[in-house]
Amino acid sequence: MTRLNRRHLLAGAGAATATAAIGLQLEVPRARAAAPPAGRQAPAFYRTKVGDFEVTQVADGARTFPMPQGFVRNVPREQALAAAGAAYMPAGMVTVPFNPVVINTGSKLVLIDAGFGPGAGAPVGHLQANLAAAGIDPRAIDIVVLSHLHPDHTNGIKDASGGLAFPTAEIKVPSADWTFWMSDENQAKAQDNAMMKGYFANVRQTFAGLADRVVRYDWDREVGPGITALDTSGHTPGHSSFAVSSGSGRMLVQSDVTNIPEFFLRNPEWHVAYDVDPEKAVRTRRRFYDMAAAEKTLISGFHFSFPSLGYVEKDGTNYRLVPVRWTPSL
Amino acid sequence: MTRLNRRHLLAGAGAATATAAIGLQLEVPRARAAAPPAGRQAPAFYRTKVGDFEVTQVADGARTFPMPQGFVRNVPREQALAAAGAAYMPAGMVTVPFNPVVINTGSKLVLIDAGFGPGAGAPVGHLQANLAAAGIDPRAIDIVVLSHLHPDHTNGIKDASGGLAFPTAEIKVPSADWTFWMSDENQAKAQDNAMMKGYFANVRQTFAGLADRVVRYDWDREVGPGITALDTSGHTPGHSSFAVSSGSGRMLVQSDVTNIPEFFLRNPEWHVAYDVDPEKAVRTRRRFYDMAAAEKTLISGFHFSFPSLGYVEKDGTNYRLVPVRWTPSL
Repeated sequence: MTRLNRRHLLAGAGAATATAAIGLQLEVPRARAAAPPAGRQAPAFYRTKVGDFEVTQVADGARTFPMPQGFVRNVPREQALAAAGAAYMPAGMVTVPFNPVVINTGSKLVLIDAGFGPGAGAPVGHLQANLAAAGIDPRAIDIVVLSHLHPDHTNGIKDASGGLAFPTAEIKVPSADWTFWMSDENQAKAQDNAMMKGYFANVRQTFAGLADRVVRYDWDREVGPGITALDTSGHTPGHSSFAVSSGSGRMLVQSDVTNIPEFFLRNPEWHVAYDVDPEKAVRTRRRFYDMAAAEKTLISGFHFSFPSLGYVEKDGTNYRLVPVRWTPSL
Repeated sequence: MTRLNRRHLLAGAGAATATAAIGLQLEVPRARAAAPPAGRQAPAFYRTKVGDFEVTQVADGARTFPMPQGFVRNVPREQALAAAGAAYMPAGMVTVPFNPVVINTGSKLVLIDAGFGPGAGAPVGHLQANLAAAGIDPRAIDIVVLSHLHPDHTNGIKDASGGLAFPTAEIKVPSADWTFWMSDENQAKAQDNAMMKGYFANVRQTFAGLADRVVRYDWDREVGPGITALDTSGHTPGHSSFAVSSGSGRMLVQSDVTNIPEFFLRNPEWHVAYDVDPEKAVRTRRRFYDMAAAEKTLISGFHFSFPSLGYVEKDGTNYRLVPVRWTPSL
């Protein structure tokens, strides 16, 4: 007789009976202290080969917070919460992960985006710890490429004492973002918008003293061997993605073409609160995903759930993300 | 001007131009040896809290192999290959992962299924290495529960020298599987079926000398504190799943209610080659997933892609798996 029913989920089914029946056996083996819980998560890094390149996804962390009004600007909060619920996020909350990526091209070790850095506090700012777990020495990073100048992408270029976290690396920033965020005129215009005001202040603080050190990059040029910057502006004026190419291997590093895919890839018309030009971001998103879906190109997404790799497919007028299957050995 | 198009994917777009333009900058920084590729994947373990229990998914590995005729018994090979292609498996191939789970109940450390063991060779047999990475000492395992007596679940109870890999653990086997596979009459009937013949031989070899040591368990009883065995027979006569319950936390350990979800959860009527009673396996599958979907219960799946946790939803008359989002810190 099969008894597989809700009762099994609603209580420790048959527990009393079972304890009575096999209690002696459970007690027999030996007196031994119970194993303590480990209490720590696995380090979050994951490797993929793209042609001859070795790509390592490295988590900076993930934040779960009560979804603020306007997190999705152009749909009611209830509709956004329904999408969160459909993705099994905790009731009333939204989870946003943050995942930089390291590309070893054989000649250059390139980090794309740097996470929050140590100042933001748990549960983010773990890039350095996860790099260490991955066996990647921050002093070995040749180039840090920033996709755009938002704090979750830029602030990890500094260490806890304000020094450079990747001391020997070139730091590359998108020209259009540098121009936009460093403009005093733009900053003055943003004084009534708390979020934008914070962003302008953060850029100035993060890059204080580094203006002569950063290298500005332009679209359709390489930022590293086999890594070409793409114009995916809208989220910010200089927001960039990257086409990675080695041999027959291809990958797109999408940066913030979407924030969390459960919302903005499933619903490409939704506007995340952080977009500077949300309408342009929508057009970019559709163009980017139409291309990626047609080519079945592997996508690395900063705000995808770790290991933050997947394929995008068209789903009517929307899209869906198919996460990669985890490959336990290279 | 935005130039985001197929060209970016088809070649290292703008590479020649870019190298010319920024070549000097790339050369300037310093003479330094290139960082060698790490050449190793991350250890594959992942932690989840279920009530007060600490659950650790631990990969034994994954196999990718040319899909044999009859891998799915009741659909043409081309149809199964189409499902593999839709899941981005390599052309003509199928990928099957193997993921045991460890549950620390606070008083007992329970391993459910033991992987292939060291004899099968790469790319499987990595349970011990991943347990070590997770900080779990095999000598601390109190109970090894085997969901059924197939080699990918049982053989890891032995170490490379044929000794017990979990030397102080109780080894629990489902009564109905023990009876079935240990029957000389059943073995004799299977002599014309190479697969079944192999299974019978493997059970005898794996459990040689252990008949008095193994503890047989029955359904609807606890196999460990808060871990109740469920009748999910069909795949084998004693195939078992487990309802895990701690406080308000619930999880189902499904074992092989499906083999790979990309095939058999998406298409619950498909019969995997390894089923002893495929029609019963289909009925079990529907009952199990109807229950899990209604209750939105977290499911740990031995053949789900690592970290082998997700939620099952109804999708018309079929089902779909929603993998958990990775939580980078506990």
